[in-house]
Amino acid sequence: MTTTSSSSATTLGSGVHDRALRARAHRVIPGGMYGHLAVEKTQLPTNFPQFYETAVGAHVRDVDGNEYIDLMCSWGPVLLGYAHPAVEEAVRRQMSLGDINNGPSARLVELAELLVDTVAHADWAIFGKNGTDATTACCTIARAATGRTKILKATTAYHGSNPTFTPIPAGVTDADRVNIVEFAFNDLASLEAAAAENDGDVAAVIVTPFFHDGFGDLASVDPAFAAGVRALCDRIGAVLILDEVRAGFRLDVRGSWERIGVRPDLSAFSKALGNGYPISAITGTDQLRDAADSVYLTGSFWLQSVPMAAAIATVHELVNTGGVEHMNSLGQRLVTGLRAVAEDHEVPLIVSGEVTMPKIRFVDDPDLRLANVFCSTALDFGVFLHPWHNWFVSAAHTEGTIDAALTAAAAGASAVRQSL
Amino acid sequence: MTTTSSSSATTLGSGVHDRALRARAHRVIPGGMYGHLAVEKTQLPTNFPQFYETAVGAHVRDVDGNEYIDLMCSWGPVLLGYAHPAVEEAVRRQMSLGDINNGPSARLVELAELLVDTVAHADWAIFGKNGTDATTACCTIARAATGRTKILKATTAYHGSNPTFTPIPAGVTDADRVNIVEFAFNDLASLEAAAAENDGDVAAVIVTPFFHDGFGDLASVDPAFAAGVRALCDRIGAVLILDEVRAGFRLDVRGSWERIGVRPDLSAFSKALGNGYPISAITGTDQLRDAADSVYLTGSFWLQSVPMAAAIATVHELVNTGGVEHMNSLGQRLVTGLRAVAEDHEVPLIVSGEVTMPKIRFVDDPDLRLANVFCSTALDFGVFLHPWHNWFVSAAHTEGTIDAALTAAAAGASAVRQSL
Repeated sequence: MTTTSSSSATTLGSGVHDRALRARAHRVIPGGMYGHLAVEKTQLPTNFPQFYETAVGAHVRDVDGNEYIDLMCSWGPVLLGYAHPAVEEAVRRQMSLGDINNGPSARLVELAELLVDTVAHADWAIFGKNGTDATTACCTIARAATGRTKILKATTAYHGSNPTFTPIPAGVTDADRVNIVEFAFNDLASLEAAAAENDGDVAAVIVTPFFHDGFGDLASVDPAFAAGVRALCDRIGAVLILDEVRAGFRLDVRGSWERIGVRPDLSAFSKALGNGYPISAITGTDQLRDAADSVYLTGSFWLQSVPMAAAIATVHELVNTGGVEHMNSLGQRLVTGLRAVAEDHEVPLIVSGEVTMPKIRFVDDPDLRLANVFCSTALDFGVFLHPWHNWFVSAAHTEGTIDAALTAAAAGASAVRQSL
Repeated sequence: MTTTSSSSATTLGSGVHDRALRARAHRVIPGGMYGHLAVEKTQLPTNFPQFYETAVGAHVRDVDGNEYIDLMCSWGPVLLGYAHPAVEEAVRRQMSLGDINNGPSARLVELAELLVDTVAHADWAIFGKNGTDATTACCTIARAATGRTKILKATTAYHGSNPTFTPIPAGVTDADRVNIVEFAFNDLASLEAAAAENDGDVAAVIVTPFFHDGFGDLASVDPAFAAGVRALCDRIGAVLILDEVRAGFRLDVRGSWERIGVRPDLSAFSKALGNGYPISAITGTDQLRDAADSVYLTGSFWLQSVPMAAAIATVHELVNTGGVEHMNSLGQRLVTGLRAVAEDHEVPLIVSGEVTMPKIRFVDDPDLRLANVFCSTALDFGVFLHPWHNWFVSAAHTEGTIDAALTAAAAGASAVRQSL
């Protein structure tokens, strides 16, 4: 695949294939598409493609042959780069043996051992498919362990698309949410108040490693807040669940809060664990082993061997190549460069979040008009940047792809400047 | 792989690899294994392996090199046989393009079109990963469409492993079940009573194509009951959800109730749709299109192209080769043969369920002692039969493999006779 390294716009395909597929999709899929990848429903700029053909490394190609340097990584799962050779080789090797069977293969044990060795708090692991499988299992295990019902979560924090956690209320009943209590992220007083109001019935606090949801700016965790969550859980006998579904393996392979010295009781992993292959994981401490054993956790495809082989290869490759350090170095280059672009072009661009998962926002841009001009222009320059969701850096990015992204961002900033 | 076609016992592996993996698993997985594939927790006979190495066609091989004619099909997903050439070729072709991306590929539209063309009631389709994703989405869509809360289900019917439907109560709260109301399968009066007790608040009736859960005998649906469910839903404005996760594509590709002239409003498919690749589907009518469009349905891996390519190949192959008819013919041979074996050996064996998904039970065998003797002996003769769950026939079975299974069943019946 080619990359865009100059400031000239790529020759974009006509979009004729994308339009034709959208028309067909509208006939056989409600609204033409569902979920977070639906470009029309999520109001992405009109030049964003809906349908893709292929992807390699840090590049994706749409069905009209347009190629983009990609900073979404399939919304997180792609950690080492698309079609990573070591992962694909492990997949091919496992496929030649088998995938699904009447029971698991040895890959299950090997992957559980690898996570127990890698993730600092983990004494055991259980595997599912969706991130929501893992967050749901964590809540159920916490309730089984404590005999309590309430789960405390941060306001607007996303922990899955099921009726308990979905941000969209259609079809959700009061009963789906009656045991969910909200607090403000990084605000220990609000957490203490939520716990006090449910004294004796708090099963768990579920929290993301940093605040990465909602339409405002993202926020790193205040180490004092994380320590306070741990202390509160210890004091009241509640379970601390770290929802690593989005952030896992991009901040620290040992667990995202290991750097600040706070260990959860349970973690939910998914997205990046298998470099795009479908798998999620619950890891936990010995104290919760019996509770985990008591809960019925299963699914038709949960013991597939191929995604487990992919996950083993992904974690090994990440660790052996210093992937987290590489991503952080490039993420720092990206964020620093974006801020320089904003200053050069005198546009009010805010970059927030962890550097491997940054998010942009323009000041006084509630309808995203400026963000859309910025990202639409960058797309015309061959770089996929998202106007309202955090981006994802992968280990397949290089200084060259990041600099090309910054060139496109400069074009975007110039367009924003002109539109102000 | 070799098959066992004589009555002599195969030379079984020592089980040393299986035992070693179990010991390792007990250290890093709560209870050593989770879910429905856990042989110790589900109390399978001690000679049943926990860990498998490979599978081809109608045969599986465990980690000690023991080969079995398989009548479990990975608990349903394997429809055409393990590693089916047409499916694997479609998978390889799609893998050479790509799997996960920033949006779906054309496979999404092609598969939705194929299901709309194939499933009689379907005007649209949406795809997830787990069967539980599909059953949950059906309930949420029904609630969004009706503005009501209650879901009516048959007693002991399994519709997923989430807290709403799991058969195991650990970690489940009252709120998880407060909107679930039970009736007796094939008992229209009990359904009418459940609906009347929740007059004005019934969002949906969810029902399996035949009664395939619980530890008793299975039961085909009474056509008058199915028609009565349809009439009740029409009368009270509730949504009829057919949970095809287990039975789908083994009874009728058009939908399992098409043979009796009853069409649901929503169907949940999974297991067999992708011949083992992880995918589930919700199909629905135009009347529910807007409601489906209003619900947030998404997951990190829900738009993978490889399982969609597998599903397209699976449905085409099933239809083009008359797979359902083939499975039904062999299933009839299996069930007839089992009843003859029981008569020949004078053992009180009951065979119930649809012939492609039969279940065995011995009379007066509440602790499964006789069922375990039967299946344990059959396993020693190289055939995997399950003592308390329904079996699954695949299109890879032949008269030869079914007859070999019956030879093993005869050995099992002989052992049961001796133990009576």
